[in-house]
Amino acid sequence: MPRPRVNLLSVELIADAAIELADSGEPFGVNALARRLGVTPSSLYNHVDGKDAIIELMRGRLSRRYLPAVVTGEWDAVVIGTVRALRRLYAEHPLIVPLIVGKTITDPGVIAGYDRLATALVEAGVADDEALAIVAIVDAYAIGFGMDLASPDEIWRPDVPTVTLGRLIAGAAAGSERSDAAFEIGLDMLVASLRMRIEGPQPL
Amino acid sequence: MPRPRVNLLSVELIADAAIELADSGEPFGVNALARRLGVTPSSLYNHVDGKDAIIELMRGRLSRRYLPAVVTGEWDAVVIGTVRALRRLYAEHPLIVPLIVGKTITDPGVIAGYDRLATALVEAGVADDEALAIVAIVDAYAIGFGMDLASPDEIWRPDVPTVTLGRLIAGAAAGSERSDAAFEIGLDMLVASLRMRIEGPQPL
Repeated sequence: MPRPRVNLLSVELIADAAIELADSGEPFGVNALARRLGVTPSSLYNHVDGKDAIIELMRGRLSRRYLPAVVTGEWDAVVIGTVRALRRLYAEHPLIVPLIVGKTITDPGVIAGYDRLATALVEAGVADDEALAIVAIVDAYAIGFGMDLASPDEIWRPDVPTVTLGRLIAGAAAGSERSDAAFEIGLDMLVASLRMRIEGPQPL
Repeated sequence: MPRPRVNLLSVELIADAAIELADSGEPFGVNALARRLGVTPSSLYNHVDGKDAIIELMRGRLSRRYLPAVVTGEWDAVVIGTVRALRRLYAEHPLIVPLIVGKTITDPGVIAGYDRLATALVEAGVADDEALAIVAIVDAYAIGFGMDLASPDEIWRPDVPTVTLGRLIAGAAAGSERSDAAFEIGLDMLVASLRMRIEGPQPL
């Protein structure tokens, strides 16, 4: 008799289950993923070559989900679209961040996304030795603000007197409204300083 | 008979063991921490009020370890010192990031650190409603580049032809040298754009 669940296994199903497992905060590994899918670890190994390959499947699946159509146009549109999409990805899957940043990127779709960003920068005149740094800056910014958006609505709760922080918190928005506002200011600053580097000083 | 290990328990020991546990990647919780310390969960509860309190102890302990003397001077010195120290903290403890960013900050030492940053910005003339955004930008930048520094030496390994990315990788440094170079460029950009906001356009 065929075992239906095994036969229905696909890399897409494996990637989706791996994302659910990582999001749940339970320990991540081949055995735990096999249990979640209701298959044996050896069935899983028929489709993927171990934990690193599964993490790479997750990265590819998430990138296709969040970065479908944001990667064309001028360098600034590519930067802004990439930062926005990646921030959303990291914010909605914060527990996956340590897994995916810990592994070398090989997924062809993800590589193609970084290649489009690098190409847009170089075509805009960024020197080769600076383009890869700017790719890292874009990624760092998206990760940092993804984590910020994933933070609790109340970031700080001072139980001690403060000089300034308590007053600022009392006067500011909280939750995603606070994070969105900070992100937009930071993204403006990022794009403005990239523009200064790429296009030179702008008229005031 | 007294049980020595229980009697020797202190919040410092608990914080250090919690950091080790989180760094190990094993599931984080009161029971696992008690096992690591060789005490019962109820002994642990004599010192700390559950998982959230333990995470807050870790945050405080790590902040005191990484941010001892970087938080005085002009706004730019405070920003640069804070970003550098936090980046190091996050890079050396990447698995702790999802734990600590997921909880409201209450540790008095950590609150004091954010308060000094906020105070330096406001004293430099930053408007109240923008100062908290800049604090979030500084933090996001440090988290993002902490994760970048924690990445594998080889970030991308394209197995498919690329337009630009493969050439850039071949010509660039790898590992912490690559990450450090990108971080310094990004930090220059961050401080320059903060300076523009705080002090107005600079002479060329």
